[in-house]
Amino acid sequence: MQKTFTALTLALIAAAPIGAQDKPAPALAPSEIVAAAPKADWTTIAPSDLLVMDLAPDAEGKPRRVVIQLMPPPFSQGWVGNIRKLAAARFWDGTSVNRVQDNYVVQWGDATEKKALPAGLAKVPESAYTISHADMTKVWVGGSSEAEIRDFFAKREKSKVRENILAIRNAIGGDSYALQSAPFMGWPVAHDNLDFEARAWPVHCYGMVGVGRNLSPDTGTGAELYTVIGHAPRHLDRNIAVVGRVIEGIEHLSSLPRGTEALGFYRTAKERTKIRSVRIGNEVAGLPTYEFLSTESGSFAQYADARANRRDAFFIRPAGGADVCNIPVPVRRVK
Amino acid sequence: MQKTFTALTLALIAAAPIGAQDKPAPALAPSEIVAAAPKADWTTIAPSDLLVMDLAPDAEGKPRRVVIQLMPPPFSQGWVGNIRKLAAARFWDGTSVNRVQDNYVVQWGDATEKKALPAGLAKVPESAYTISHADMTKVWVGGSSEAEIRDFFAKREKSKVRENILAIRNAIGGDSYALQSAPFMGWPVAHDNLDFEARAWPVHCYGMVGVGRNLSPDTGTGAELYTVIGHAPRHLDRNIAVVGRVIEGIEHLSSLPRGTEALGFYRTAKERTKIRSVRIGNEVAGLPTYEFLSTESGSFAQYADARANRRDAFFIRPAGGADVCNIPVPVRRVK
Repeated sequence: MQKTFTALTLALIAAAPIGAQDKPAPALAPSEIVAAAPKADWTTIAPSDLLVMDLAPDAEGKPRRVVIQLMPPPFSQGWVGNIRKLAAARFWDGTSVNRVQDNYVVQWGDATEKKALPAGLAKVPESAYTISHADMTKVWVGGSSEAEIRDFFAKREKSKVRENILAIRNAIGGDSYALQSAPFMGWPVAHDNLDFEARAWPVHCYGMVGVGRNLSPDTGTGAELYTVIGHAPRHLDRNIAVVGRVIEGIEHLSSLPRGTEALGFYRTAKERTKIRSVRIGNEVAGLPTYEFLSTESGSFAQYADARANRRDAFFIRPAGGADVCNIPVPVRRVK
Repeated sequence: MQKTFTALTLALIAAAPIGAQDKPAPALAPSEIVAAAPKADWTTIAPSDLLVMDLAPDAEGKPRRVVIQLMPPPFSQGWVGNIRKLAAARFWDGTSVNRVQDNYVVQWGDATEKKALPAGLAKVPESAYTISHADMTKVWVGGSSEAEIRDFFAKREKSKVRENILAIRNAIGGDSYALQSAPFMGWPVAHDNLDFEARAWPVHCYGMVGVGRNLSPDTGTGAELYTVIGHAPRHLDRNIAVVGRVIEGIEHLSSLPRGTEALGFYRTAKERTKIRSVRIGNEVAGLPTYEFLSTESGSFAQYADARANRRDAFFIRPAGGADVCNIPVPVRRVK
């Protein structure tokens, strides 16, 4: 917690006593590394992979837009397909935010639970909460024959990518919930082992979006969604589908009044925030283009190291590690 | 994210198909373990260890009280002493909440940075961000002679307490930021090693309260405070003093509108939430008595295991671990 406003802090740095100059110059802050990352290290997000939720305007009439990036293959695609159908059917228009539980989640959908669902929604099995390393490899390599995989890894072995990935994993260190966890192909992913038979799954970090469900064996359709607004509730990993993340406007959800009923549900209908519309990004006129910092890039490796070892001016002691949810994948609007 | 309201979920359990009865009965949820904990497993918090902050009422005229428990010895006592002096001097009355940064912190104090501080505030050294295991042992044992320590551990060896502590540590597993971390004497504490020479420090979990400061070697007086409202920013550990935690009313801070300036500072004075008064608990008429679940108790060990391995009805796959900030110390009002 930098105590003072930025201008004053800069003034303090300028006025530092002579002795302070003996120390090495402070390293770049993670935000400065991101700002300096070359264009080639950014990946464009297709508008068709965005879900744009417009809430009713706030008390002062200001618009409240929440932009969600949907998870790419091979993760959670059964539910993501349902979400595309629900948006196409305008299912969420006129529904509401029904639950805000402090340090946990904000949840939205049809509070009446009576609205008809569009036809053709998939019933996704629980096994799809995780995916095999074999399936991950197929998507990553862009092929699945032994020759293709061998060729991919042989090339990678000599590439900078491998070095970047190892540096990122090294920044993370221990994890109470998985053998290993790291950003992978743009998303926080955990692994129960490291071999070809291992399973991987997306992680419930701040801002991640998941699918509400009833008791097992129900897995939810995707009609009821939530986002994390507190410390990563990773006990939900592998118990519930993760389908995306909020990349802009989470403050419109995280700053809503907390519900006072059990689990943070609102007591009365009037406490609920109305949802005007939810659309896939390519249906939204004038939507900016978004990019995320490629998690296999040199800039990301440098950023991860800086998140794990803060050496910028404010810090006196680098932590030596950062958990996967403390290395959020940077997203920006393209200017 | 339980999809439905509690009543409906219970109805679903009652209506479960016959096949579902083959499964073992669901285990207790962490909240049920806490509700069932015997009186002996709770520790009363002295009113003199509470800091009560009354914000101006909200838009509907409802009171907004935030109750903070101050850290006990041997942690951060230089700053805690300053905070007591600041409260006695009514320093915060009429100041404001000046910064709300999403997924990070809410910060309050004198926005003008010109208000006079009371006389006699300690200037606490950076070395006090951590404490030695030797000092921790003194407080824990209630003595520091070799005989006293030997006697304490000999008794503990045969006691249930040791078993509870080992069970709690076992529930936590890996940590990216420390060799080990666990709730200890009621607080989340991390350790850089396990021997008598090791250092320990309080952890920046959700709701923990810390001391704003300027650049090193400044360590802050305690006049500028913040609380964590997002994923545990543990890179701040050992870089800044942790002095307490919000035990009630954090929603009055975490749901405030986010500031739009750098670091979440508010752009205009009128966006700031006014602080009416901040008092030590024994100056506040009618304050309830609060207790925390003793972190060396059998109930806490059972609770920690249940946080790490959810086996209650909603869960299909226990995580196998929980990080220290996902095992928050339960606090309750005494009825």
